[in-house]
Amino acid sequence: MVKILNRRKFIKTSAVAGTAALMTPKTLFSSTESKRIKLGFIGTGLRGQWMVHLTTKYPEVSIPAICDIDKNMIASTLKILKKSGRNEPRVYSNGDEDYINMVKNENLDAVYIATPWEWHHPMAIESMKNGIHVGTEVPAALTVQDCWDLVNTSERTGMHCMIMENVNYRRDVMAVLNMVRKGLFGEILHCQGGYQHDLRHVKFNDGLQPYGGGVEFGEKGFSEAKWRTQHSIDRNGDLYPTHGLGPMSNVLDLNRGNKMQFLTSFATQARGLNKYIKDNGGNDHPNSKIKFKCGDIITTTIKCHNGQTIVLSHDTNNPRPYSLNFRVQGTKGIWQKDNRSIYLEGLSPESHVWESEDSYLKEYDHPLWKKFESKAKGSGHGGMDFFVLRDFINSIKNKTRPPIDVYDAASLSVISPLSEKSIRLGSAAVKIPDFTRGRWKNKKPTFGKILEL
Amino acid sequence: MVKILNRRKFIKTSAVAGTAALMTPKTLFSSTESKRIKLGFIGTGLRGQWMVHLTTKYPEVSIPAICDIDKNMIASTLKILKKSGRNEPRVYSNGDEDYINMVKNENLDAVYIATPWEWHHPMAIESMKNGIHVGTEVPAALTVQDCWDLVNTSERTGMHCMIMENVNYRRDVMAVLNMVRKGLFGEILHCQGGYQHDLRHVKFNDGLQPYGGGVEFGEKGFSEAKWRTQHSIDRNGDLYPTHGLGPMSNVLDLNRGNKMQFLTSFATQARGLNKYIKDNGGNDHPNSKIKFKCGDIITTTIKCHNGQTIVLSHDTNNPRPYSLNFRVQGTKGIWQKDNRSIYLEGLSPESHVWESEDSYLKEYDHPLWKKFESKAKGSGHGGMDFFVLRDFINSIKNKTRPPIDVYDAASLSVISPLSEKSIRLGSAAVKIPDFTRGRWKNKKPTFGKILEL
Repeated sequence: MVKILNRRKFIKTSAVAGTAALMTPKTLFSSTESKRIKLGFIGTGLRGQWMVHLTTKYPEVSIPAICDIDKNMIASTLKILKKSGRNEPRVYSNGDEDYINMVKNENLDAVYIATPWEWHHPMAIESMKNGIHVGTEVPAALTVQDCWDLVNTSERTGMHCMIMENVNYRRDVMAVLNMVRKGLFGEILHCQGGYQHDLRHVKFNDGLQPYGGGVEFGEKGFSEAKWRTQHSIDRNGDLYPTHGLGPMSNVLDLNRGNKMQFLTSFATQARGLNKYIKDNGGNDHPNSKIKFKCGDIITTTIKCHNGQTIVLSHDTNNPRPYSLNFRVQGTKGIWQKDNRSIYLEGLSPESHVWESEDSYLKEYDHPLWKKFESKAKGSGHGGMDFFVLRDFINSIKNKTRPPIDVYDAASLSVISPLSEKSIRLGSAAVKIPDFTRGRWKNKKPTFGKILEL
Repeated sequence: MVKILNRRKFIKTSAVAGTAALMTPKTLFSSTESKRIKLGFIGTGLRGQWMVHLTTKYPEVSIPAICDIDKNMIASTLKILKKSGRNEPRVYSNGDEDYINMVKNENLDAVYIATPWEWHHPMAIESMKNGIHVGTEVPAALTVQDCWDLVNTSERTGMHCMIMENVNYRRDVMAVLNMVRKGLFGEILHCQGGYQHDLRHVKFNDGLQPYGGGVEFGEKGFSEAKWRTQHSIDRNGDLYPTHGLGPMSNVLDLNRGNKMQFLTSFATQARGLNKYIKDNGGNDHPNSKIKFKCGDIITTTIKCHNGQTIVLSHDTNNPRPYSLNFRVQGTKGIWQKDNRSIYLEGLSPESHVWESEDSYLKEYDHPLWKKFESKAKGSGHGGMDFFVLRDFINSIKNKTRPPIDVYDAASLSVISPLSEKSIRLGSAAVKIPDFTRGRWKNKKPTFGKILEL
């Protein structure tokens, strides 16, 4: 690993030095070009393409290389880049391992990883080993060991590994975080979050469109159904904890003065996916025989060092309206998203009675949102994608630690394997590793700081 | 115990036989009188007085004896009885143990127990041992052993022990139960309940009024503050699980085709009660030094034999609007009380979008509520008290097992000590006893059956 790094440093140094005699700096790199961040994309499916599109809005970021095993997805991405007037990137699409060639051969500052979950970890590791900062889609890794591997590799290489948890930037979530930091909720006692999203039309489709229209998945599926559904066959646990836990991590200062200690996890029976296949594909469809391991509703409770508890819900296989299950509660009051309400002692006009969250969310709108509201508009997922990408790019540009760093990537992601372990052990309490190795005591919260681009 | 029963039987038999020669049956018992149910009251505090008041509406029920250590409470109860034209009952108020004299000496069919929590178990046991059916306020017992003791004593004596869980009869809860039984939610997967009620003004008062006005409790407190607050000093767990769990027990057919298997419990830091004392009594008030053991928010998760999970929340020490946290979720849809909403696949007009619960609660209003709506009005707690008392009286009158029986009393109440145990053991998974000793497999749901008075 050190050898590779040295080789890369050598390449970089010798490239600049060796050509300097032959070319003017301008022909090698324009002064803009030399300052430009070189961001590669591994995984250019629908999510990757969207993030490529958003990245093209940053003139200071170039996209010299992209990687995907699917030629159609590559073609769509090239169209996006062409349409925005960008140079054609080098393409790596020669099988599953071609990303290794990309991170070895390309002189990248960073990569954005938007591949199936199981690839995030090896791709992040390989990138960091090659001196490249990483932004990875959630979750960052699927096993406890792989979470440690991310941390260890980041520490050894000095490369960042930001988990691109966009929900941390949701407008209401940031307003509530703002209120928490101003002390409006008093001392925080309890938080809730989760991923409650009927994904049946994502886990199954007709192989032609990303959402619904059939009960196919895997080889015969399209987009996420190609790989995501298999996790419900192989694993029983909270498969997707980060959207709920990420924002609550900031509320609770996890890894920054507080940390998670242990959890238990419970699974219900697994019914929804089989029912969906039978209801929509008939009892004779071959997929109707599949045994899904993942319980339909997973409830995980986490105990924090400073005393607080967190309840996470994972609920994706049955009919239900979308909800990330947010609740923030302290000694002075409570915010509960499902009824869009807040109650704060001394502020709420009527004792024991909810009031609408609206005026609070407006009054305590986070400065970042106030500042970048117009830029965030239309940038995906209600503007969250703008902010998460902006923090990633800023971190590379300013050589600063990203506000959601490798310790967060590990501790948000590790909930999945630990949830699986707890369920396997009859909902036993399972210890949550301290990936900071004690540094959580002195680390300060940085999320939500305004940095200029 | 058998000896005592025999003695009672002897007394009853000999009393009737011995006096028959001297009096006409009519002078001994009028024909109405002989059919009247004799219901004694142990505990005539505010709750007991209310239930006495409701009982006076039943001409077929007499109240020959009442018991309380507090002479003022006895006086208030006598006034209630007099006002309703009832005979003056015999009074037992000679110290903590006088209830034993009452259940030994009085020829009662049943007692209603509305005393501090710690007295429910010994009073229920003593009553059953003396051939008297029991209706007890929640919880029925505070330890695992005492829960077993209730079951064993009920089985040995043939006396019923109904836990007076009035929330089982809440109108929305019974409408949803009706929907569950009609299959509208499909197979049930997950339920939530709890007791989320800011009780600070109940746990503390000025010693003169039941609610608020000071930060006194125990000797210096009034009504519930006299005894309830101490539990928050001595115990760390879900102190009050039955209001949330009772209704969900019916939804899940617990003890009737299903049962609870194990639980874990988590506690947050304990802050709210100390803060309340300091905020309202000042930092120098002697109570400000008290160390409360009970975490402010307790989260308990339960796994059921048939696969479902239940999440219970206990949250009484901080400012928050009242909520019993109900959620019922199955393979076809979900009811969630906090946003007063329902979503049912195929029925709700818009996919993934909540609709108001209102029209469903109206359409599926439980037959019991339809029938007794006018009688239930004004009977306390939104009519619930009417129904719980009615089922208790019916059970005695008709010599039928009450719909919330001793197994329910034990399994609803045992959550508290098991929650304490789990928290003590670092949120370890704790087995929940099967109080039915296997009979849950064949028992059928009876709750909500219409019985004529």
